[in-house]
Amino acid sequence: MFRDRIRYAPLLDKITEAHEAASHIKDGTNLFISGFAAGYPKEVPKELARRAANGEEFKINIFAGASTGEELDGLLAKAGIVGMRRPYMGDRAMRKMINEGKIRFKDDHLSQLSQMVRAGDCGTVDMALVEAAAITEDGNIIPTLSVGNTPSYVQKADKIIIEMSGEDPPTMEGIHDIYVPEDPPYRMPIPIYRTSDRVGKPFIDLDPNRVVGVVFSKSSESYHHFSEPGEVPKSIAHRILDFVRHEIKKGRLPKGLPWQGGVGDVANAVLSQFADDDFFDEMDLYSEVLPDSVLDLIDRGKMRCASGSAVTFSKQARERFFERIDNYKRHMILRPVEISNNPEIIRRLGVMAINTALEVDIYGQVNSTHTLGSHLMNGIGGSGDFERNSALSFMVTPSTAKNGLISAVVPMVSHVDHSEHSVDIIVTENGLVDTRNLTPRQAAEAIIKNCAHPDYQDALWDYFHRAVTERGGHEPHILEEAFSFHTRFLEKGDMHL
Amino acid sequence: MFRDRIRYAPLLDKITEAHEAASHIKDGTNLFISGFAAGYPKEVPKELARRAANGEEFKINIFAGASTGEELDGLLAKAGIVGMRRPYMGDRAMRKMINEGKIRFKDDHLSQLSQMVRAGDCGTVDMALVEAAAITEDGNIIPTLSVGNTPSYVQKADKIIIEMSGEDPPTMEGIHDIYVPEDPPYRMPIPIYRTSDRVGKPFIDLDPNRVVGVVFSKSSESYHHFSEPGEVPKSIAHRILDFVRHEIKKGRLPKGLPWQGGVGDVANAVLSQFADDDFFDEMDLYSEVLPDSVLDLIDRGKMRCASGSAVTFSKQARERFFERIDNYKRHMILRPVEISNNPEIIRRLGVMAINTALEVDIYGQVNSTHTLGSHLMNGIGGSGDFERNSALSFMVTPSTAKNGLISAVVPMVSHVDHSEHSVDIIVTENGLVDTRNLTPRQAAEAIIKNCAHPDYQDALWDYFHRAVTERGGHEPHILEEAFSFHTRFLEKGDMHL
Repeated sequence: MFRDRIRYAPLLDKITEAHEAASHIKDGTNLFISGFAAGYPKEVPKELARRAANGEEFKINIFAGASTGEELDGLLAKAGIVGMRRPYMGDRAMRKMINEGKIRFKDDHLSQLSQMVRAGDCGTVDMALVEAAAITEDGNIIPTLSVGNTPSYVQKADKIIIEMSGEDPPTMEGIHDIYVPEDPPYRMPIPIYRTSDRVGKPFIDLDPNRVVGVVFSKSSESYHHFSEPGEVPKSIAHRILDFVRHEIKKGRLPKGLPWQGGVGDVANAVLSQFADDDFFDEMDLYSEVLPDSVLDLIDRGKMRCASGSAVTFSKQARERFFERIDNYKRHMILRPVEISNNPEIIRRLGVMAINTALEVDIYGQVNSTHTLGSHLMNGIGGSGDFERNSALSFMVTPSTAKNGLISAVVPMVSHVDHSEHSVDIIVTENGLVDTRNLTPRQAAEAIIKNCAHPDYQDALWDYFHRAVTERGGHEPHILEEAFSFHTRFLEKGDMHL
Repeated sequence: MFRDRIRYAPLLDKITEAHEAASHIKDGTNLFISGFAAGYPKEVPKELARRAANGEEFKINIFAGASTGEELDGLLAKAGIVGMRRPYMGDRAMRKMINEGKIRFKDDHLSQLSQMVRAGDCGTVDMALVEAAAITEDGNIIPTLSVGNTPSYVQKADKIIIEMSGEDPPTMEGIHDIYVPEDPPYRMPIPIYRTSDRVGKPFIDLDPNRVVGVVFSKSSESYHHFSEPGEVPKSIAHRILDFVRHEIKKGRLPKGLPWQGGVGDVANAVLSQFADDDFFDEMDLYSEVLPDSVLDLIDRGKMRCASGSAVTFSKQARERFFERIDNYKRHMILRPVEISNNPEIIRRLGVMAINTALEVDIYGQVNSTHTLGSHLMNGIGGSGDFERNSALSFMVTPSTAKNGLISAVVPMVSHVDHSEHSVDIIVTENGLVDTRNLTPRQAAEAIIKNCAHPDYQDALWDYFHRAVTERGGHEPHILEEAFSFHTRFLEKGDMHL
C-alpha cells in the first residue's frame, strides 16, 4: 500500500527506517517541518525522542507551519531537545518550557515566515521533514491535510526527509493549490481574484536528489475536539451575524464578502450558525484553518468555497471528509499559509475577519497572546495578518474567564498584539461595539456598557471617569492603576474588587 | 491668470466668492477636504472661522488626507467649530483640544479611510472641499501637491467646492497618478509592479454638476521646515545604511528594494545620507510623503522614482521644485494615499520601511502616538500600513528626549501602536538591533545594551532581571512596575532614578 503511493521510481530507493532518516538530524540542525494543526511528521520525531531518552545530548531548532500535535511539539519539548521553535504553537508541555525560558520561541506573523526563510533571514535550511500523502509520477509531493510553509521549506532545504502518511489517503490529490510567489523586487500580483481561484499546482515541487530518506508512517495524529457550542459562543455568533446582516441591508457592506475565522470554539460556533441562517446562502471562507463546520456548510449547499492552509477536523469530521472526499474537494482549497494569509489577497477580497482575544481593553486594544502580560498562550498566529488587512475586523471573547474570576475587559490590556487602529468591532456575549466611528473615549463608554460583564462595569467606569478627570488626554489612562485588575488577580486569584 | 486654469467653460459660471461657497457648509456638515501635508484649501476655512468669530454657532466634522497647516486645522480648531476630525493631524492648537476632549479625533490607518468613505461607513459625504491647480478641458481636477483621499471624497460628495490655487502652477499636471480601486468583492489586482509604474489618470474625475462653487485662492500654505540633520539623526541614518548594505552583501536582501520614510527629521536625514553614499546608486522610494532630500537625490541622478501621496517641502525646495518641474516630474509620482500606502503593493514591492517611534520597550513594542499613555501627539498616520506589510521594518528614535529627562527605551511602552511581531529592527543613535531572530528575552538584552541611553541602562537591566526571576514567562513583566519610568516622570519631570 505504501509503495503504491510513491509513483516516482527513483524515490523507492530512498525508502528507509525512521532511525536511519533521523540520523541526518544532529545537534544544532535547523529542522523545517510540515504541519499546521494537521499534517505534521510523526515517525522521525519519535526517533529523535528515543535518542534523547537514550542519553544523546542534542538540540534542534524547529520551524513549522503553525501548531502541531502532542506527538511532535509535546514529545520533543519533553525530550528536552528543542532549542528554538517558531512560529505559533499550542502544546501544553512546550508552552510551559517556553515560559520558563527553556525553549526559545519567536512569534512570527504566519504570512511572513516563508519569505524570510527563502531570503535566508532565518539561517541555514538544513533539513526539511515533511509528511506526504503521495509522490507524483514526476517526483513531486502531494501533502496531507495542511500546506503551511512546506513548499518554501522543501524549496530551500539542503536535505529532505519525507514521511509517507499511512493515515490520509492519496485521494486527496487535487485539494491543494501550491503557489509560491516570486520574491521582491520581482514579485507580480498574486492572481487570486475570488476565493475559489486556483492559481498554482496540485503538488509541491520537489528536487528528489535532495531526499535523504522516505519513511513509512504508521502513526495517526491528534484530532481536534470541538465542544458543542455553548450559550456564550452562540450569543457572540448571533451578534456578529445580526450586525453583518444589518450592514448589508443598509448598503454599507456588499453581500458575498468572504469570511475568516480564527482557531477555536467561537470561530467554529460562528460558522455553525450560518448553517441555520437563510440570509447567508452562498458563503466563501478565505481563512487559515477550516474546522468541522465547513463540512456541514458544504453538505447544505451553502459553502461556495472554503480556502485555507489546513483543516482542524475532529475524528468524526476527518472520517466523513475522506468518505466523500470527491465532493468536498470541489469546495475546498488548501494553500500555502503565505497565500491563505496574504495581505494582498485579504485586502483585495475584502475579508471579514473574526479572531479571538484573550482580553480587550476599554479603548479597544487587544491581547491575543500573553496572560498577565508575561506568559505566552499560543502565539499571534494569523490574527495579525487578517485583523490588519481585512475589510471588517471582529475581535471576540467571552466577557469573563475562569468562572468569572477574570474579566476579559480591562482598563488596559497587559500585552498588545492588535492596536485600536486595526480592530473594528469588539464582541462579547453581552454585546457588540463597532468602534469605527468612535473616538477612544466614546469606545470606552460603549465597551464598558455593552461588552464588559456587569460584575466588572462599576470598576471599569470608576477607572475611566477618574482617568478622564485626573489625567485627561485623547486616551486617558492612570498608568499606576492601569493594571489594577491584573495585579489584583495576581494577589488574590480574582479580579473582583 | 486664474480663469486660464479653468479649461472647462461650464465651471467658469461656478466662480464665486469664498463666503458664498462657504454658505453651503452648515452646522453638522461632514466636510471632506483635500490636504496631506500640502494641498489643503485655505479660503473657505478662513470664511468659516470668520463666521464663528461673528458669533455663529456651528460645528463641522472634518475628514482630510492627513495633516494640514495652521491655516486649516489650527484656524478651525481655535474657532471652536470642529466637532470631529480624522485621520492624522499635526496642529498644536488642534492637538490640545483633542487631548482636552473638545474635538473628537479618530485615528485611522491612512490606507483605509477612502474605502470606508466609499462604503458609507463614515456617514454622509455632504461636502468635498478641494484645492486644484487646474481644471482640464473635460472638467476634471488637477490637484496640487498632495492627493490623499481626494479622489474618493470627490467621487462620493453630494456637493463640491473647488479652491483654485494661486500658488502652485498648473505645470504640475502629469505628476499625479490617480487610480481608485474597485471595491471588494470585485477588486482586481492593483497593477503596480514597480515603483515607477503609472496605472491611472493624471487628473481626478469630477462630476461638474455637483460643484457648488469655484473659489480663487490668494493664500499660500505653511511650508515645512527641516533642521540640518544633527549628529543623532545622522548616526541613526548611518546605522541603517550600514545594516542594509551588510544584508545585501550577505545575499539576504536583494539590491533595489524601494524605501519608505515616515514624516520628520530622521527620515529626511536617512534620505540625505544616500546622496553621499556610492553603494546606493539607483533608488526607489515607495513612500507616503516626499521631503526636500528627494530633490537632491534626483539632481544627483540617484533617484529612479519617488512615489508618494504628497510632498513635505520647505519653502526653498518648493521654489526649486517648480523652477525645474519638468525634470522632477519624470522622477516623481503623487498617488492617492490608498495606493501609496496599500498593503498589496507594499508587500509586493518589498518596501523597506523606516518610521519614527515616540518610545520603544525592551521587547520591541512601539508607541508612535501617545505620550505618557494618554496624550495624543499626531496620530498613527501610515506607519501601521508600512510597518505591518513591509519586507523590512525599521523603528527609529533618539534614545532620549527632553534633554535626557525622558528615556525613549522603557520597560513597557505606555501605548502600543506596533507590536513586536511587526517591528523588525530598532535603531537609536547608540545602536541597531535586528529582532527578527530574537526571542523577547533576547531582544530585551540586545535593546537595553545597544539602543538604550547609558544613563538608563542600569534601571532597565534591573527591571528585566527581576521580571525574569520574579515573574518569568515568555515576555517577563512586573505589571505594577512596568510604567515606573513614566510615573517617575509624572512625579518629578525626570525618568532618572
